[in-house]
Amino acid sequence: MGERTIRIALLGIGTVGTGVYKLIRRRRDVMMRTAGANIEIARILVHSLNKERPGIDRELLTDDFDEILEDPSIELVVEVMGGIEPAKTMILKALNAGKNVVSANKDLIAVHGRELFEAAENNGCDFMFEAAVGGAIPIIRPMKQCLAANEITEVMGIMNGTTNFILTKMSEENMSFEDALAIATELGYAEADPTADIEGLDAGRKAAILACLAFHSRVTFDDVYIEGITKISKEDIAYARELGNVIKLVGRAKNTEEGIEAGVYPLMIPKDHPLAEIRNSFNAIYVYGDALDEAMFMGRGAGEMPTASAVCGDIIDVARNIMHGCCGRISCTCYRQLPVKESGKVSNKFFIRMKVKNLPGVLAKVATVFGLHKVSISQVIQKYSGGDCAELAIVTEPVREYHMRDALSLMNAIEEVKEICSVIRQF
Amino acid sequence: MGERTIRIALLGIGTVGTGVYKLIRRRRDVMMRTAGANIEIARILVHSLNKERPGIDRELLTDDFDEILEDPSIELVVEVMGGIEPAKTMILKALNAGKNVVSANKDLIAVHGRELFEAAENNGCDFMFEAAVGGAIPIIRPMKQCLAANEITEVMGIMNGTTNFILTKMSEENMSFEDALAIATELGYAEADPTADIEGLDAGRKAAILACLAFHSRVTFDDVYIEGITKISKEDIAYARELGNVIKLVGRAKNTEEGIEAGVYPLMIPKDHPLAEIRNSFNAIYVYGDALDEAMFMGRGAGEMPTASAVCGDIIDVARNIMHGCCGRISCTCYRQLPVKESGKVSNKFFIRMKVKNLPGVLAKVATVFGLHKVSISQVIQKYSGGDCAELAIVTEPVREYHMRDALSLMNAIEEVKEICSVIRQF
Repeated sequence: MGERTIRIALLGIGTVGTGVYKLIRRRRDVMMRTAGANIEIARILVHSLNKERPGIDRELLTDDFDEILEDPSIELVVEVMGGIEPAKTMILKALNAGKNVVSANKDLIAVHGRELFEAAENNGCDFMFEAAVGGAIPIIRPMKQCLAANEITEVMGIMNGTTNFILTKMSEENMSFEDALAIATELGYAEADPTADIEGLDAGRKAAILACLAFHSRVTFDDVYIEGITKISKEDIAYARELGNVIKLVGRAKNTEEGIEAGVYPLMIPKDHPLAEIRNSFNAIYVYGDALDEAMFMGRGAGEMPTASAVCGDIIDVARNIMHGCCGRISCTCYRQLPVKESGKVSNKFFIRMKVKNLPGVLAKVATVFGLHKVSISQVIQKYSGGDCAELAIVTEPVREYHMRDALSLMNAIEEVKEICSVIRQF
Repeated sequence: MGERTIRIALLGIGTVGTGVYKLIRRRRDVMMRTAGANIEIARILVHSLNKERPGIDRELLTDDFDEILEDPSIELVVEVMGGIEPAKTMILKALNAGKNVVSANKDLIAVHGRELFEAAENNGCDFMFEAAVGGAIPIIRPMKQCLAANEITEVMGIMNGTTNFILTKMSEENMSFEDALAIATELGYAEADPTADIEGLDAGRKAAILACLAFHSRVTFDDVYIEGITKISKEDIAYARELGNVIKLVGRAKNTEEGIEAGVYPLMIPKDHPLAEIRNSFNAIYVYGDALDEAMFMGRGAGEMPTASAVCGDIIDVARNIMHGCCGRISCTCYRQLPVKESGKVSNKFFIRMKVKNLPGVLAKVATVFGLHKVSISQVIQKYSGGDCAELAIVTEPVREYHMRDALSLMNAIEEVKEICSVIRQF
């Protein structure tokens, strides 16, 4: 039997694309043995043909997507350009032309997932996206296959390496947010514009995608409540330590009787929880299910080669499907339509830190306002902080978010409350 | 289109079989939606038809394997009986009859894997075994698919929940091995005969299977160096703590230029290593690869429902393959033939604890014997322990195991050395 060659096209050759290019070349032999076919990069779509790209074969470059689309010998398109457009149009065109697609594009999938999966299904094509969540960490395939018999009740994880690096520096080296961000930028963990990371948008996209997989119901980026880490201060980190916790930016999705909760926010997690130990730029995803009990997946959530590891795993899997004539064997698993819960109805414990006047009766006034809004207090730490000023740190029992918001807005009407410094959820 | 039904047979209905039975019934609807077919338990093979089995439909029971083998409507056989025979013969017969097989049988796969995979491949059948390693933890599929583009260099993990529970109790509650084992037995974590767990045999089987997947080369149970936890004492646990370590029973497989190292043994691991945090009966597997860097998978390694979770994930996947006509799409991935390294040639750091006479010059004699056998010492703790007796605790640099064995056998010739109490590897 002659050797079969599967020709693929890369859309984009930035960081991830370069990693994929290198790994395919490095692993040619393994891919042949595990996929049963040669995998050959036939074309690479770029914006500008003239840019210097050391190590990349210039012959493969094209700036014309139609060359790829109209080449029937290309069976798989690997989208590693990122962003919504032109990625979306190109992926849809590729699928509609009967080409399989592997994508690492969380931004796109978190918003337009349904359309992409439908196009894949209608055309009997594979649409794989293991790299879109958790980088090198196997999570999409485990959710769709290994854990498929479970009723997943909750997914929670550290889904962004940049913010985890920053929070680790703040916790372990007593740095301010600004200093830690500066180091993250210097080391290349944070981009020139770090907004998507530090404001939680990147984690929000991943949380949306994981919620779809976990609950078999479409959750989009817009459905996710999002809060970043820019307001976390050294003082909050110190209180977290005092309470036996660490602060992590978590993405969380929960299936409740009132609907799906999906959110990204800083969370105080007890020190002995496995997620508390996930340090620096590592990511980790925790899954709860009725049969599996609990499981955690940890690894590198980003970077050239870790992301390429996931993309190339998908490429090998598509190649196997091509060789066995079963492309499209696992399609979209969102067969339910569950409501998404309003964020105000979600219950959480809260940590609240406020500056108050150091006078008798202040705590009573604060406690009264909380009580009126169904907020039960489980712990209070009061510290004199100089002059006529004291600091109150309060931990609550679980309370609906809208009750908490109402209570906090009334708190400002108490004359002795000078400032509400922090409101952080607690596990 | 009428609904397609896939009929399966269970071989055995013990703990795992009962879990699978329950989960298939509980998840009927989900399985239909994700696999595209009804999954129906058509037959259950039992040893005795008369035993009470509450909740199990008696109509399904048979004590005649041929009834299953000769029923062409049964497309999938789920082997959950355990042990080598008759499981091996039955699985081979089923595969040779063109039936797909899902098995949770690590004992069998670790010894006769090659034969089973060959039979599956020759017959174009699926042979899946996600439950054989790590219970509910997705690890087989991640290794065969998600991480397929990596050169995996090492796999290390806590692969046995019973021993991890015992070591956790010893570390955190200062218990003796015997007391901790008694509690494990009481709670059902340890079996009436705990040998396979506490002597490391169970972990050894899993290490062999993981080594095959990691290095694409056949490693069998016989190739694995095995040492259990029965000799670990309270004193060792205390020294581990003093050195900033915890003791875990790990399975470990490494691909080196001199061949594959495969072993199971107690290991002192630094407190801040993610494996050190895996407590009680949890399992966790750490994987190192050139593209992924490092990843860890944690979860329940045993138990009725966690194991059923993995088995049912496989069942759904086989059903998908049946529906898409692509059974056998992922076959054995051992396409290389790497040598297995003699255990004596493996290098490790060691912790050695010995009772010596409390006299000047003893340490010099001990150090001399080590030096003669190329053992470099990195740390020494000497403690007076009453009478004319002192305790020496020595941590070495990495040294080949046969040098260490030679050094230790000569150590007994030193008159002042009363007893070598412990020899424990260090990470």
